[in-house]
Amino acid sequence: MDFNTLNDRRGTFSTKWDKMERGFGVSPEDGLAMWTADSDFPTAPCVIDVVREAAEHGVFGYSWVYPDYLQSVQWWMKTRHNWDIDTDWVLTTQGLGNGIALALDVWTKPGDGVVIFSPVYHEFAHKINKAGRRVVECPLTRDGDTYNLDLDDAQSRLTGDESMLIFCSPQNPSGRVWTTEELRELAAFAARNDLILVSDEIHHDLVYTGHSFVPMDIAAPEHRNRMVYLTAASKTFNIAGQRTGNMIIPDPELRAAMNHRLATLDYSPSALGIHMITAAYSPEGAEWVDAQIAHLDANRRTFDAAVNAIPGVRSLPLQSTYLAWVDFSGTGMPPADVAARIRDEAKIAVSPGPGFGTGGETFQRFNLATQHARVEEAGRRMQHAFRDLQ
Amino acid sequence: MDFNTLNDRRGTFSTKWDKMERGFGVSPEDGLAMWTADSDFPTAPCVIDVVREAAEHGVFGYSWVYPDYLQSVQWWMKTRHNWDIDTDWVLTTQGLGNGIALALDVWTKPGDGVVIFSPVYHEFAHKINKAGRRVVECPLTRDGDTYNLDLDDAQSRLTGDESMLIFCSPQNPSGRVWTTEELRELAAFAARNDLILVSDEIHHDLVYTGHSFVPMDIAAPEHRNRMVYLTAASKTFNIAGQRTGNMIIPDPELRAAMNHRLATLDYSPSALGIHMITAAYSPEGAEWVDAQIAHLDANRRTFDAAVNAIPGVRSLPLQSTYLAWVDFSGTGMPPADVAARIRDEAKIAVSPGPGFGTGGETFQRFNLATQHARVEEAGRRMQHAFRDLQ
Ligand SMILES: Cc1ncc(COP(=O)(O)O)c(C=O)c1O
Ligand SMILES: Cc1ncc(COP(=O)(O)O)c(C=O)c1O
Repeated sequence: MDFNTLNDRRGTFSTKWDKMERGFGVSPEDGLAMWTADSDFPTAPCVIDVVREAAEHGVFGYSWVYPDYLQSVQWWMKTRHNWDIDTDWVLTTQGLGNGIALALDVWTKPGDGVVIFSPVYHEFAHKINKAGRRVVECPLTRDGDTYNLDLDDAQSRLTGDESMLIFCSPQNPSGRVWTTEELRELAAFAARNDLILVSDEIHHDLVYTGHSFVPMDIAAPEHRNRMVYLTAASKTFNIAGQRTGNMIIPDPELRAAMNHRLATLDYSPSALGIHMITAAYSPEGAEWVDAQIAHLDANRRTFDAAVNAIPGVRSLPLQSTYLAWVDFSGTGMPPADVAARIRDEAKIAVSPGPGFGTGGETFQRFNLATQHARVEEAGRRMQHAFRDLQ
Repeated sequence: MDFNTLNDRRGTFSTKWDKMERGFGVSPEDGLAMWTADSDFPTAPCVIDVVREAAEHGVFGYSWVYPDYLQSVQWWMKTRHNWDIDTDWVLTTQGLGNGIALALDVWTKPGDGVVIFSPVYHEFAHKINKAGRRVVECPLTRDGDTYNLDLDDAQSRLTGDESMLIFCSPQNPSGRVWTTEELRELAAFAARNDLILVSDEIHHDLVYTGHSFVPMDIAAPEHRNRMVYLTAASKTFNIAGQRTGNMIIPDPELRAAMNHRLATLDYSPSALGIHMITAAYSPEGAEWVDAQIAHLDANRRTFDAAVNAIPGVRSLPLQSTYLAWVDFSGTGMPPADVAARIRDEAKIAVSPGPGFGTGGETFQRFNLATQHARVEEAGRRMQHAFRDLQ
């Protein structure tokens, strides 16, 4: 387990490091990459071992989604989330962006409204738009450091031609871990409006002490007939480059529809991706994730202490995820000036808040899944860049 | 380069070995797996090195289809096939089965006719059927050991509602390498009938001395406005498990349509797949492929000599591919009896000829991409299983 050895991802075709100059104008020479959601440290040793063994074997022929894989997914959900699933429920996709796109493809029509609660992972809206569906954006309400659902407000925004709700649980970018009660109300809202509910639970594993993630399926099992759950090992184990995710669908009719679409498109995941996830969803993998959470917890404490010391800056306390959601509204500075300082003075590539929709205007998202020394450095740079506010 | 060390793929989640019992009733205990089209020997050392380095690095985050990858594809087409392509023309898919499925999805409508020339790779018809399109099967004519196109016959089978032609060049299962003249006539046929021509050139690299593969784009550049070329490193380098293929589309409008579909579905290939192909399409990779062709050439000679010694059995001389296409019609035995002997006496799992459509009834396809000793063993087993014919 190695979370703190400084490594160099530049020149490895890492999107986060090798595209930050092009995307954000921050040079990798002296910049820090804290945008796209992957981690700078290596994955779990048990996962690396599988890759090493694959290299030894040297044969990269056809494989399939084999029972051991499905059982490891089942084991993980039971052991880590107390969630009982059938292995039959698990379909694999080319990652969860693809999973969301497929859900839109199968269960919505062009022009349909698709409900999201903002601020939220920017790709929800992008994918809805790309597919020619209509984004129905319902803002979360903010109460101090916490975001909440306002389902009455959401109801008032619906026009009746909505067919899907895409929900992020736990929530990217705020890290909010939803309670059973909130999830139950959301599921009832979906039922009332006859919406397929896509519950994107990709961030479910990285939850901090004091909070506990509840799978939608446990909160609202009576609404299974409209539920599509998305999970993946990609964030948890830093293997997003393998492009493999799961779509867990208990309802036989919904599942048959998606299976048909996957078969029509002749989907089948990378063998190495399947091998890696099988190794990840194991007791060794679980131990590594526990250690990772402790590491991320230290990172966020260090980061929050540093940026919250800048007057007017507030990093919302994370309940989950390694994505710090930082509000600069208290500085009174125009968001463009804040962004320019972070880029030009702190030389940090971050994910701009406005991209996450309504409510994100004054925010910037910082990815803390890196070595602790880099988080300290980011804190120092931020304090220096905003030193005139001290 | 190691084509002959006996290895054991059983228990590695290899479809070819670990599913042969379930699929064909041939036990892996003492059976030989000669069906699905991957190879038993390890891939090129330069490709394995990339996987080893990835394990060393240990970080499997986001990547993209980077210029070096595209340039390596371009280099390969130029160096190996004298084919000039723009890097812009290259789109990546989740393998070529997926590429075919996407082509059907984008350029045909439910109910459309899709033309294929049989016998041909069984998945063409499967995918057309799965997508709810109609297979328009045009048999190749057979002249001794050689298959030929009969475009007059094909023309007479068309009803006018065809929108696509899927062509296999070189041809699986017969290994036929089409000439420039044949390709030109086929392209003209497609143009006359206003068909999109999907030219599946996945087997283009494994061609034997005396034959030379001509890319459709070189044979009929004037028909580019209806052409979609499929290529991959998967057969050539035995990396089909990585599920990565290329769709090469010179025409800007066709390309825009496919790009839109890929974006809507949020496709992006596995990073390791892209790294492996970049390493494969190199001078070291080319050297390895040359050595592989020599190895396969020896394999087919050994195999053909053994099975052609059985009265009534004819392994068609391969112009390309490692897929021996063996005709048992001369034995006078019912095809089911032939299949039963191969399964129960020779204990070899093969691809049944009837699956390849009209013209395949009396054939079995044997995959020779294995160690030479296994090919010798297969020859001995076949002679023994059919010893009463001697
Ligand atoms: C909520 C959420 N869903 C999906 C994804 C994308 O997943 P994938 O890389 O599997 O496409 C992300 C990545 O940041 C995410 O945060
Ligand atoms: C002609 C042809 N096309 C496509 C494929 C499948 O390619 P992939 O594994 O990339 O889906 C094969 C595999 O045997 C093939 O022979």
